[in-house]
Amino acid sequence: MDNRPAASEVLISEVGPRDGLQSVKTIMPTPHKLRWIDALHAAGVREIEVGSFVSPKLLPQLADTAEAVRHALGLPGLTVMALAPNLRGAQAAMQAGAHKITIPVSASQAHSLANVRKTREEMLADVREIVSLRNRSAPGMKIEVGISTAFGCTLQGIVPEDEVVALAAACVAAGVDEVGLSDTTGYANPAQVRRLFRRVRAEIGDATGAAHLHNTRGLGLANCLAAYEEGVRTFDASLGGLGGCPYAPGASGNVVTEDLVFMFEAMGVRTGIDIARLIDARAPLRDGLGNEPLYGMTPDAGLPKGFVQGAVHG
Amino acid sequence: MDNRPAASEVLISEVGPRDGLQSVKTIMPTPHKLRWIDALHAAGVREIEVGSFVSPKLLPQLADTAEAVRHALGLPGLTVMALAPNLRGAQAAMQAGAHKITIPVSASQAHSLANVRKTREEMLADVREIVSLRNRSAPGMKIEVGISTAFGCTLQGIVPEDEVVALAAACVAAGVDEVGLSDTTGYANPAQVRRLFRRVRAEIGDATGAAHLHNTRGLGLANCLAAYEEGVRTFDASLGGLGGCPYAPGASGNVVTEDLVFMFEAMGVRTGIDIARLIDARAPLRDGLGNEPLYGMTPDAGLPKGFVQGAVHG
Repeated sequence: MDNRPAASEVLISEVGPRDGLQSVKTIMPTPHKLRWIDALHAAGVREIEVGSFVSPKLLPQLADTAEAVRHALGLPGLTVMALAPNLRGAQAAMQAGAHKITIPVSASQAHSLANVRKTREEMLADVREIVSLRNRSAPGMKIEVGISTAFGCTLQGIVPEDEVVALAAACVAAGVDEVGLSDTTGYANPAQVRRLFRRVRAEIGDATGAAHLHNTRGLGLANCLAAYEEGVRTFDASLGGLGGCPYAPGASGNVVTEDLVFMFEAMGVRTGIDIARLIDARAPLRDGLGNEPLYGMTPDAGLPKGFVQGAVHG
Repeated sequence: MDNRPAASEVLISEVGPRDGLQSVKTIMPTPHKLRWIDALHAAGVREIEVGSFVSPKLLPQLADTAEAVRHALGLPGLTVMALAPNLRGAQAAMQAGAHKITIPVSASQAHSLANVRKTREEMLADVREIVSLRNRSAPGMKIEVGISTAFGCTLQGIVPEDEVVALAAACVAAGVDEVGLSDTTGYANPAQVRRLFRRVRAEIGDATGAAHLHNTRGLGLANCLAAYEEGVRTFDASLGGLGGCPYAPGASGNVVTEDLVFMFEAMGVRTGIDIARLIDARAPLRDGLGNEPLYGMTPDAGLPKGFVQGAVHG
């Protein structure tokens, strides 16, 4: 599946409204959230994970996900994504009309049990049920599995690559459209990113989905570069580096959208996103979040003198 | 020239005692500085730029450079480097017994004039004089030129790659041993790093020296990865990301040694440096600097669970 805008070479999938907001305590008021989504779209972002269909008791920050989906459906050219951790969430996503859902399935058995109290095999059974429901009720909706802890786990440590590859194959056999790899814990290194994406692509081909990489140890962009060189063309990132379990002040979890877009555009790889307008999209985020710190080095340093987006200098 | 320790695949050249300290106002007391250098060496660092032979009026932080050189000469296996911006500095470095000097020559004419009030051509004339003095007085001392603003300039913007390549060739013709490329302004991107190192190597072969890359826009490690993939094997970095003209809080200039070593070691590329002891070397730096902020995400986040240095997981 390729939902990149025609003129772009990579698709930046903005996960801030889901992965970012679920990690901060502040509850962003819905009107601010919708303005933020609008600003991301206006900058050229063409895939946004606008929320998560989980219990509002668990994540009150995302209680307005159905409203966010319905609003985002009005933005032209946008793929509206939401996270759905289970059948009930998937049902809600279909009812709201999401174009695509992402289901997190952990490669680490320890993480899976701790996080959702289910084994990987039980999660796979859920995935099969969701696919079956989708096929009956919303055949146009795409389903992605994001394999979390694909590069290592804070509970069990090493996650064998064979198990990640086998899990990716099992997800495709279960009928999902795409399988992405998530470095939930910020453990990945560029050699591992290349190796694992290569192995997964050899197993499931074009069903290989997004790279969801973290910047916990500063390697986020280097890992994205490695994934790009290995053929990955969809990258999750979060505006202002919001979310993704930051460990320490200044240490963001998610890859910062602004820095990632700058890297690609500076390399001459088209993202379809206007960097200046992307940086403008920090304003509604900041307005809606109050005192939460935003990361991103490109917004702080500014664009290089003489930098013209869309021009490749030689 | 290859001064990597036998068991290592890359040489991490620590520039903190020069590039770091010259950028902070605090004057580190000499005993602390020497303890810091000792701690870096104890961690396995095998090349350290211990100071700069400039006027103590200009940089009082580095007034003890001769003493730092003499002390560092007692550390086994260490290549003791110092910066020498002119003939007088080079003379002082030879007298102190430095193994190697680095001379900054700017690829940007605007930067050269603003920084040292000399054209590139005048700087090249200085380089020839220094080489001639070295040949007469200290034939064992190595001379590196670090081409600053090689990837762009805050004054003139774009720096034509042809001029960088020609400057590198002129430096080799002037008799220097190595020519490195410095991203003084944090403008570089991975595609440019690859392209320029490839062009310089095509021109001057094994005289191609270190990659001195900054993290101003968050691309530091991605750029190091690109340089590594292009065959570069010497990387400048600064403990705690100290120095390198930080633009903003949290935005370090120099690539952080701890994160760079973690990236390479996690990839299975040997640096010869023990990460835990390298992180320990932050203590004497902090002791000697008081309230200066130190950066580095690996020290904050810790090493991944199950991470064993020297082991490559598959």
